[in-house]
Amino acid sequence: MSKMMKAAVFVEPGRIEIDDKPVPPVGDNDALVRVTTTTICGTDIHILKGEYPVEKGLTIGHEPVGVIEKLGKNVKGYQEGQRVIAGAICPSFTSYGCQDGHPAQDGGAHAHGYKPMGGWRFGNTIDGAQAEYLRVPDAQANLAPVPEGLTDEQVLMCPDIMSTGFAGAESADIHIGDVVAIFAQGPIGLSATAGARLKGASLIIAVDGVDERLRLSKAMGADVVLDFKKVDVVAEILKITGGRGVDAAIEALGKQETFEASLRVLKPGGTLSSLGVYSSDLTISMNAFSAGLGDHKIVTSLCPGGKERMRRLMSVIANGRINLESMVTHRFELEQIVDAYELFAAQRDGVIKVALTTN
Amino acid sequence: MSKMMKAAVFVEPGRIEIDDKPVPPVGDNDALVRVTTTTICGTDIHILKGEYPVEKGLTIGHEPVGVIEKLGKNVKGYQEGQRVIAGAICPSFTSYGCQDGHPAQDGGAHAHGYKPMGGWRFGNTIDGAQAEYLRVPDAQANLAPVPEGLTDEQVLMCPDIMSTGFAGAESADIHIGDVVAIFAQGPIGLSATAGARLKGASLIIAVDGVDERLRLSKAMGADVVLDFKKVDVVAEILKITGGRGVDAAIEALGKQETFEASLRVLKPGGTLSSLGVYSSDLTISMNAFSAGLGDHKIVTSLCPGGKERMRRLMSVIANGRINLESMVTHRFELEQIVDAYELFAAQRDGVIKVALTTN
Amino acid sequence: MSKMMKAAVFVEPGRIEIDDKPVPPVGDNDALVRVTTTTICGTDIHILKGEYPVEKGLTIGHEPVGVIEKLGKNVKGYQEGQRVIAGAICPSFTSYGCQDGHPAQDGGAHAHGYKPMGGWRFGNTIDGAQAEYLRVPDAQANLAPVPEGLTDEQVLMCPDIMSTGFAGAESADIHIGDVVAIFAQGPIGLSATAGARLKGASLIIAVDGVDERLRLSKAMGADVVLDFKKVDVVAEILKITGGRGVDAAIEALGKQETFEASLRVLKPGGTLSSLGVYSSDLTISMNAFSAGLGDHKIVTSLCPGGKERMRRLMSVIANGRINLESMVTHRFELEQIVDAYELFAAQRDGVIKVALTTN
Amino acid sequence: MSKMMKAAVFVEPGRIEIDDKPVPPVGDNDALVRVTTTTICGTDIHILKGEYPVEKGLTIGHEPVGVIEKLGKNVKGYQEGQRVIAGAICPSFTSYGCQDGHPAQDGGAHAHGYKPMGGWRFGNTIDGAQAEYLRVPDAQANLAPVPEGLTDEQVLMCPDIMSTGFAGAESADIHIGDVVAIFAQGPIGLSATAGARLKGASLIIAVDGVDERLRLSKAMGADVVLDFKKVDVVAEILKITGGRGVDAAIEALGKQETFEASLRVLKPGGTLSSLGVYSSDLTISMNAFSAGLGDHKIVTSLCPGGKERMRRLMSVIANGRINLESMVTHRFELEQIVDAYELFAAQRDGVIKVALTTN
Repeated sequence: MSKMMKAAVFVEPGRIEIDDKPVPPVGDNDALVRVTTTTICGTDIHILKGEYPVEKGLTIGHEPVGVIEKLGKNVKGYQEGQRVIAGAICPSFTSYGCQDGHPAQDGGAHAHGYKPMGGWRFGNTIDGAQAEYLRVPDAQANLAPVPEGLTDEQVLMCPDIMSTGFAGAESADIHIGDVVAIFAQGPIGLSATAGARLKGASLIIAVDGVDERLRLSKAMGADVVLDFKKVDVVAEILKITGGRGVDAAIEALGKQETFEASLRVLKPGGTLSSLGVYSSDLTISMNAFSAGLGDHKIVTSLCPGGKERMRRLMSVIANGRINLESMVTHRFELEQIVDAYELFAAQRDGVIKVALTTN
Repeated sequence: MSKMMKAAVFVEPGRIEIDDKPVPPVGDNDALVRVTTTTICGTDIHILKGEYPVEKGLTIGHEPVGVIEKLGKNVKGYQEGQRVIAGAICPSFTSYGCQDGHPAQDGGAHAHGYKPMGGWRFGNTIDGAQAEYLRVPDAQANLAPVPEGLTDEQVLMCPDIMSTGFAGAESADIHIGDVVAIFAQGPIGLSATAGARLKGASLIIAVDGVDERLRLSKAMGADVVLDFKKVDVVAEILKITGGRGVDAAIEALGKQETFEASLRVLKPGGTLSSLGVYSSDLTISMNAFSAGLGDHKIVTSLCPGGKERMRRLMSVIANGRINLESMVTHRFELEQIVDAYELFAAQRDGVIKVALTTN
Repeated sequence: MSKMMKAAVFVEPGRIEIDDKPVPPVGDNDALVRVTTTTICGTDIHILKGEYPVEKGLTIGHEPVGVIEKLGKNVKGYQEGQRVIAGAICPSFTSYGCQDGHPAQDGGAHAHGYKPMGGWRFGNTIDGAQAEYLRVPDAQANLAPVPEGLTDEQVLMCPDIMSTGFAGAESADIHIGDVVAIFAQGPIGLSATAGARLKGASLIIAVDGVDERLRLSKAMGADVVLDFKKVDVVAEILKITGGRGVDAAIEALGKQETFEASLRVLKPGGTLSSLGVYSSDLTISMNAFSAGLGDHKIVTSLCPGGKERMRRLMSVIANGRINLESMVTHRFELEQIVDAYELFAAQRDGVIKVALTTN
Repeated sequence: MSKMMKAAVFVEPGRIEIDDKPVPPVGDNDALVRVTTTTICGTDIHILKGEYPVEKGLTIGHEPVGVIEKLGKNVKGYQEGQRVIAGAICPSFTSYGCQDGHPAQDGGAHAHGYKPMGGWRFGNTIDGAQAEYLRVPDAQANLAPVPEGLTDEQVLMCPDIMSTGFAGAESADIHIGDVVAIFAQGPIGLSATAGARLKGASLIIAVDGVDERLRLSKAMGADVVLDFKKVDVVAEILKITGGRGVDAAIEALGKQETFEASLRVLKPGGTLSSLGVYSSDLTISMNAFSAGLGDHKIVTSLCPGGKERMRRLMSVIANGRINLESMVTHRFELEQIVDAYELFAAQRDGVIKVALTTN
């Protein structure tokens, strides 16, 4: 009889609950990780609300920090007991799509090798990280040892938030001396702000409507913060840049309003780097888009995964470049996850991110 | 009293006419070019119809082939009598915008150095090329000598059509082995097809609804041509690619339908390279856009100008890599330009491009 | 008792011989390929001569075309009996080095994930392709099905020669309109010439000293061929380019002379793309290098591998972009391989590449 | 009779002296700048020693901070009296070479448009900045207004040191999470260190043999400093990186020893970014270079110039990203420049950079 564990499962729209499930079996190319800390993502709230469909009974969550419990026989170079993380996106790295530079769109063994968002498996197409144990597939490519001295909370943002936010700055192709505007300062926007700072932007303008987030934004590297409830953000950014516009704008919310504002503040030749998950069609204003003749770029990025990405992000933290653990505003035990979901979904009490621990 | 010349001027919406105007004076950084051959662009038709506003009395046209008549005193390294072309876009190359990699968005001496489409001056903000003489500003940066042995018609596509179409392929970042779809096979789409071929695409799928254009498309390098009047283009392209989609799609029309089809045939991680001039807002279908998580890119390109660009394009022709003069289907004298506009605007008689000559 | 097969093994410096070896066993992540056609590479000659050390008894060869004989249980999406090739370089794609963009330098499960040339395993660190059967490790990442209608000889250059030569053109970052010089027109130089043509170079200058190779060079896309025995190649290239130099020079031999000539013909800001395997230290002439201030780049490329690379190269051939099978000048049965080595090492009878078949 | 000024002129090897020269005339595309602060560069010492040849009588110096005294009639968008800097490299931006992406190799009006280091004019091919007045050619492209609130010393490093050092980091193509080693921590190496930090390197290792420089190096962003007099630098860097090597190494001295060490510490696939001015041929060790098969890159960068570059660098300073004025260790009046040269050439008294002021 297999060992049992606690796991947060999707029951039906509106209901994610703690349930008892068998600890997953470990295939030859897998690893079993005992999760010590995990968290809840905005995407999980979409799942909870039934806005993003997953199978009933699936374990949710894609941000694991833990300890290797068991290694499949083909997984080399790791030890059981080792502290590791794995990316929210855990690609095979063997498919055509992966080898062609798009591991997040991994089609696995499919004939042509692409599947939109196919690299996102945890809590989407296979059981996820909001559980006591997590099966990591293609473990050789996805287990990233935590550098000595780093706590669980210090690396908790790496699997998704930090990787996604930084990707927003990376895809924006920020150069030294760029002016960058970031729309929305939730966890991903805050990480994008930190990423823009790390990439050498010389003026960073962050936009949100919540004081607490704007305060944190400054800590992450914003030079100027704008409250969209108080100022006309587009007008203000054009004023700050002397009418020129920004070199890059990062959309970190997933709404028409922020997408459009991002385009309106862009200089000719500028890049709109989009991170948001949109729930309806977008409109590109031709006036903002110079009728298609402004040399604008619109680029999108799904959270990069894999052990090399995780290694790099943890090295940023280990060397003190940035401190993202300040995003953890609330702490719960895994068994209290229903309360955590309720708090996080309601955006109550100044919550940015929660930490969920097992014991 | 200054010498007079014939010029095609914008009189009012619906009327471009041949008029007598003084030959332009030549400033110290200018050159005066005697135009020997020029042509009409789709953009000129927008001007004719009043859809793109220019000042009344402006000389139209931005595709000059000619002979240096007179050089400003600061322009070095050229001789009067030399055969030259100049790009449709003729930037100063000195502004902040130009130096920052966006010469087509040249803001000139403006404090911040950017102006949307600012590099496009001929027949837009200054007198253009559909005339016996053309003043070329910033001539040191914009006069490109025609290699010996090339005829006017051989280089007539360089200033705009070839530069724009190739830019569509270049911005699409085509790699060896890519599958590329090009939507619309007018002059720019045909050039984009040629550009995709030159960049190493291994499968090129071209879409149009006019037989003559589809035939020419094959000559430009398309492997497969699809008539959107006969097949469901999106379904067909997905079928050809085994469901994977194309690495890059080039939009060369400027319509919602082609923009949307471009996005729908794109693989995750693919690039939509947009060349069209849009006259109304665009809709991005979230279904085609994977909710913003498909690692898609949308990039736009305005025709690159400057003498180095022209030199490169002419070297492509001089070395026999491609033959674009086959696009010239009709010939007129400059004084017959009203007839030429009428034909070209109506897309009659299988017209692709016209050549207008002076004598 | 395991089945036996014929294999070309390294006995000692100067001796590669056909021997009987057991058909390799197939691990869970492996595939066994029955080799139908293979060839000999310049590197194999270095091994034969003892200039590149491998273990005694190793099966040589890294250019397999064949049929899947048996699939490991974890390898999905293929069928036994399917025709496939695998790259000379067959990386795991899971290591840190692979995920960081350097699969040819794959360190496998090693802690830091890098090993110089680590992706090259066949005939180097594991048994190779000059045998009746070949074990392909990490088969999910490395088996590339041959498109219907292509013969063995048509795809025989893909695993190494074509991938390497094209990489020389790709790393040179060739743009439309570039002038490119390629030094040496052996199999790799010829492929680099074809690659430069595919990437849009408008003038390609190829250098060699063998008439037959210069003839083939023209077929591969060279515009100008120079015989270094007859002209001062550096002076001639500077003359052809009007004193400017080339945008990119590709070194395809691995000698000081060609490396230095590559640098001497380079324009300021140009790229020297090096493919050669050097057997002694190189000297960078400061005069040619502008004392380090000429914005020059020197880049090296090891043959890219993996199934996506192979798929792309075969699509280039399937769509008729280039015909590399004309390089196959001589044919042998595998059992005659000692004769083939002798011919190829001596560069006798105008040999470019040999094809070795089993039956 | 023209107004006279003080200027530091090259008399003969070993002698740079203050002399009286006429204030330069101002052409239509020029500006005359009254120099308020300037400095001495390592290159100037090469000139002083006769190691880099310039014409006798030439005014030396290429790092101007000053005030616009007079504008040529074609120079628009500036006011006389405005505080400005100009880059050490002041290209025309109109030549083929400039338009092709290599303004530092500007060939001006020359037929093919390239000249090695052609963008470096001040104190090289035309009179330089160590004088009371400086003629800035192509002023429209090269005058960069100093943002309000910045002192002369705050922007004194922009024209050369900061632009060059940052270019070393930029050409190294540093990504977030990279490990970077910088060899030599003189002014340029220190700037490269600052640049690597700004680009997101997560571990920066700086090498020098002077305590004072290693101290300053930490202030510029180095995580680890190594004294080559005390440790085996190559061994130490390999140890720090667990045997993997660095992603990028920046050579900032111009010697075989540092060039070779840069190559020896490089991971496979890594980039050696060279800033040094070499005075003799370099040797590439084949052992360090993996026989040319390690996917290594060697890139060189000449100081980028032009007003956009200067604007970006000053924005970095204006927004407090880095403080380079701490490099100014000694101050002189222009008339004392012989003493300043003597101190700087001897590297006495912990000198990093000197500031020379007029009054």
